[in-house]
Amino acid sequence: MIKTDILIIGAGPTGLFAVFEAGLLKLKCHLIDALPQPGGQCSEIYPKKPIYDIPGFPEVLAGDLVDNLMAQIAPFEPGFTLGERADTIEKLDDGSFIVTTNKGTKHHAPVVAIAGGLGSFEPRKPLIDNLVNYEDKGVEYIIRDPELYRDKRVVIAGGGDSALDWSIFLSDVAAEVTLVHRRNEFRGALDSVEKVQELKKLGKINLLTPAEITELKGNGKLEELVAEREGEEIRLETDHFIPLFGLAPKLGPIANWGLEIEKNAIKVDNTLDYQTNVPGVYAIGDVNTYPGKLKLILCGFHEATLMCQSAYQRIYPDKKYVMKYTTVSGVDGFDGTRKEAPKAVVKTIE
Amino acid sequence: MIKTDILIIGAGPTGLFAVFEAGLLKLKCHLIDALPQPGGQCSEIYPKKPIYDIPGFPEVLAGDLVDNLMAQIAPFEPGFTLGERADTIEKLDDGSFIVTTNKGTKHHAPVVAIAGGLGSFEPRKPLIDNLVNYEDKGVEYIIRDPELYRDKRVVIAGGGDSALDWSIFLSDVAAEVTLVHRRNEFRGALDSVEKVQELKKLGKINLLTPAEITELKGNGKLEELVAEREGEEIRLETDHFIPLFGLAPKLGPIANWGLEIEKNAIKVDNTLDYQTNVPGVYAIGDVNTYPGKLKLILCGFHEATLMCQSAYQRIYPDKKYVMKYTTVSGVDGFDGTRKEAPKAVVKTIE
Repeated sequence: MIKTDILIIGAGPTGLFAVFEAGLLKLKCHLIDALPQPGGQCSEIYPKKPIYDIPGFPEVLAGDLVDNLMAQIAPFEPGFTLGERADTIEKLDDGSFIVTTNKGTKHHAPVVAIAGGLGSFEPRKPLIDNLVNYEDKGVEYIIRDPELYRDKRVVIAGGGDSALDWSIFLSDVAAEVTLVHRRNEFRGALDSVEKVQELKKLGKINLLTPAEITELKGNGKLEELVAEREGEEIRLETDHFIPLFGLAPKLGPIANWGLEIEKNAIKVDNTLDYQTNVPGVYAIGDVNTYPGKLKLILCGFHEATLMCQSAYQRIYPDKKYVMKYTTVSGVDGFDGTRKEAPKAVVKTIE
Repeated sequence: MIKTDILIIGAGPTGLFAVFEAGLLKLKCHLIDALPQPGGQCSEIYPKKPIYDIPGFPEVLAGDLVDNLMAQIAPFEPGFTLGERADTIEKLDDGSFIVTTNKGTKHHAPVVAIAGGLGSFEPRKPLIDNLVNYEDKGVEYIIRDPELYRDKRVVIAGGGDSALDWSIFLSDVAAEVTLVHRRNEFRGALDSVEKVQELKKLGKINLLTPAEITELKGNGKLEELVAEREGEEIRLETDHFIPLFGLAPKLGPIANWGLEIEKNAIKVDNTLDYQTNVPGVYAIGDVNTYPGKLKLILCGFHEATLMCQSAYQRIYPDKKYVMKYTTVSGVDGFDGTRKEAPKAVVKTIE
């Protein structure tokens, strides 16, 4: 059982920044995310794309924003349960909660903050009959650990940036990389397309287009794929099949947590603290809705901050927190680090 | 008469960021600030101090944050009325407003957003009988343009960072700089204190401590100061006297604009758009108050953003704005510049 003060569902920018604001209040945070790394969409969908509306950044790459937030919260030592989806919530008699993931990991906290973005990102799966039989037996939809593919034969399907970028990356790791796409044209960053072209010429990536995988074979684990190219049937011996057809966000199991839902988002009290209809459960960032709601990262930062103040009062009903400015008071990390503005000296000039 | 879409009172970080969000909605902004430069407190009071709680910046100097915001809003060409205090507001029959400064500059806009921070910063003045008679006739409390002092004789009073830093700066500009302080000890950044010490030894700054200015003399303009040091009377011929005893924020004339005030802040509707009790007048950032209000820059950013959406609806009641993401749609500046994410290509790999 993982114990913490604020359990945050979703490790996108809003969830990450909540760790910082909680830390200033001496509250510890633990984050659950279905994706294998922190950052949410910013890391998974568009890490190399610029964002122009983060205050103070005329331009920042989404991946760099995540890196900056991770650096900012590091002193508060957040815990992470990654690659697992928060599935169920249970309210205990003392008002605290137990949240259990799809892999059975249990988390206990007096406050739950849902920072779930557009929901947990579920892979779009190709329509192949027995595909699900080989899940985790050679079929993966998200690459969690590239080392899994070292010296293995890998078939990647897809025509976008993920398929291109992972083909490039794995061409240095796997024994053999085959990229299958139903068209001859790929859609992605120019340099990715050009790099795949180059690796194909060098014989480091096999290209099979226009083609689709139609059948999976293997005894207990994936051994062979059947592809169809313009009416022709092609057999590919392989250890792994990785269809990268994009991720689609789904509110998922959270929709059954007894929270008021409106237009696929969680209704919250924006007049005070972004709490849901269940006391002790908050929703911040893109996952929530209220009159005038804007799904902007900068709004999530504000919501996270007010949520932390309310969480503090819930956890310590008898204490009164007096807000301090970081410029004046500095930042004391749970890891023993201290940041502070250079002190003024009082000194005689002779 | 200066005309704009959103007239922003206060050019601190919240007011500045409002220009960006307004710009995305194709609304033009003009800012009024009593200080001689944009940035509010961040520029005037603590430009070299780090802030740790701006999301995405593990640490940022207040002055750098202002520079970044100025760069971010530059494409939207904000107008500025600086060094003037917004004094009166008048509502016209068509629901628009005319705001007039203490120097008589008039501004006309359908929406007014007060981003006044803790108020307009008024200098703390030393208690000397005829001081006010020499204001703008040799006596200044804020240095608006250092060139005013080129080759002039200047007496600065004060013992903090402002007095130290301006003495250092003007030692290269003025004919003669004398720094007067009632103690021998100065309180400031170590390198500033050391620099003044060095310049004093080089004869570039005259130091008069522990001493106070007790009298001003001159016919129509300042010509001479009388200082007292440990009972001794000292006469200083000078062209300028600049007492730098700090700035104190005062809500000032805005308090008389008919807005609901609570605890020296303007009450706003936080359930929707941070509008005041006067339709069309908003208050954002530290100047406002509502249940759970936190006086944090990051909260001002959120409030500015929701204010702009509401302002848009007020100005264009018949149009429906569909929010766009800057990463997807880019940013079109009023100056003809365009920022956008690199486009994906669609390309055949052969």
